[in-house]
Amino acid sequence: MTRVAVAQLALQVGRAEENRAAASAAVVEAAAAGARLVVLPELVNSGYVLSGPAEARALAEPVDGRTVSEWARLARAHDLVIVGGFCELAGGRVGNSQAMVDAGGLRAVYRKVHLWDAEQDVFVPGEDPAPVVDTVIGRVAMMVCYDLEFPEWVRSVGLRGADVLAVSTNWPASPVPQGERSVLIAYAQVAAASNRMFVAVADRCSAERGVGWVSGSSIMGPHGYPLAGPVLQDRPAVLVADCDLSAARDKTSGPRNDVHRDRRPDLYAAGETVSA
Amino acid sequence: MTRVAVAQLALQVGRAEENRAAASAAVVEAAAAGARLVVLPELVNSGYVLSGPAEARALAEPVDGRTVSEWARLARAHDLVIVGGFCELAGGRVGNSQAMVDAGGLRAVYRKVHLWDAEQDVFVPGEDPAPVVDTVIGRVAMMVCYDLEFPEWVRSVGLRGADVLAVSTNWPASPVPQGERSVLIAYAQVAAASNRMFVAVADRCSAERGVGWVSGSSIMGPHGYPLAGPVLQDRPAVLVADCDLSAARDKTSGPRNDVHRDRRPDLYAAGETVSA
Repeated sequence: MTRVAVAQLALQVGRAEENRAAASAAVVEAAAAGARLVVLPELVNSGYVLSGPAEARALAEPVDGRTVSEWARLARAHDLVIVGGFCELAGGRVGNSQAMVDAGGLRAVYRKVHLWDAEQDVFVPGEDPAPVVDTVIGRVAMMVCYDLEFPEWVRSVGLRGADVLAVSTNWPASPVPQGERSVLIAYAQVAAASNRMFVAVADRCSAERGVGWVSGSSIMGPHGYPLAGPVLQDRPAVLVADCDLSAARDKTSGPRNDVHRDRRPDLYAAGETVSA
Repeated sequence: MTRVAVAQLALQVGRAEENRAAASAAVVEAAAAGARLVVLPELVNSGYVLSGPAEARALAEPVDGRTVSEWARLARAHDLVIVGGFCELAGGRVGNSQAMVDAGGLRAVYRKVHLWDAEQDVFVPGEDPAPVVDTVIGRVAMMVCYDLEFPEWVRSVGLRGADVLAVSTNWPASPVPQGERSVLIAYAQVAAASNRMFVAVADRCSAERGVGWVSGSSIMGPHGYPLAGPVLQDRPAVLVADCDLSAARDKTSGPRNDVHRDRRPDLYAAGETVSA
């Protein structure tokens, strides 16, 4: 069993110091609870509701800047794998990025490929596949927020053998019918079930410049049901769940079915013509 | 607005006469309620829990047999589009098939591509894309049960312009954690939301040879929330919802986002290598 943690944080745009401190406190809390993997939200250092490219650039840091360096220090000190989002300055460009660090240091940097709304003014989209990294606890995949709404993207890490998908997100709240929960939770469930892998979502809380959040931090098991969360309350939280990550190596969904082998990619391509 | 109906039926294996009568009664009820599209479950004529190939073959009918002919008669009489599943004999082979009829007669036959469990002993899998048919009410796509668990398959009809996806299903019940509903409902929600289309699921009820059912008949709107159902009770039901099917032509999910245009197929292919 591997104890997995997701941290729902109250971030504030432009308050890098407080944001970093909140993340570090959550990581220490998760480590004290026995976690080996800790997932943090999207854009931890900067906050999300940026006024534009100038503010984003002013808040961006290189991957060897204070935020990710602090995560690397914590990962080494507590023997953790940490995945978190940060506003990155790389080669003069600003990215909505996600870093993975472990006891050995930086393992991967991913830049969000699918950009939401005004992010398009601020960030350069990623052009590389979502990483699937072999770590001491298993194969950990990375993805940011809106990326999760593209089943093809989720499938791509599933097919490359991800045991757990770490999603750093800032899910903006939108109207939800009475008695329902945000459909974004369903996306996390289906990502897990359709690939028989674990999905660990770290969302955020605390309204920022008028934007509220789903606060849907959760850990889904490979059958698509929550092992922890979703929180769905506007408060900071550290959730943990004990995950048998080796279960994600078994893609059978029934005595004679397998969620990956049952695919028919020859036919999917045939269907992809757009009609008038 | 188009009134869409899904019929949750109490089918019984081997009782073709009663099964056909139940389907016809539900269609007449839906038509009386003003429906223009009626979706029926999977394998309406035969029932689902077949003992093997011999029983399936004995219960199978050609597409011009009594079951689909009766649907064509009802479609003509009430000016409906009807989509339903039936056990089909075609070219000496037995298929888990789905027919679409309208006032003009037979419009399409689809054979389930992704076969679940013992279906593999009984049915020949389909080898053709899921149909998207231009009808008087809009573009109606077709799919059967386990097909819905393959986001690629769902995407293929979304990209070909489906306004509403008609799913004929017999969802076998499996354990669901306290406070949750079957993850199969989440699949229907995500199918709708990720393609901004309507999804109309006709499931069944009444245990058959020891197998119970989700009874998850439901109509999802393009935001991924139920407009009717899910029933989640072991009883027959005819659900209706008024659907502005033209809304499915608009794939925007925000001021600057579009669920289809935001895709990055160049990168999805790159990610599809399977690691050791």
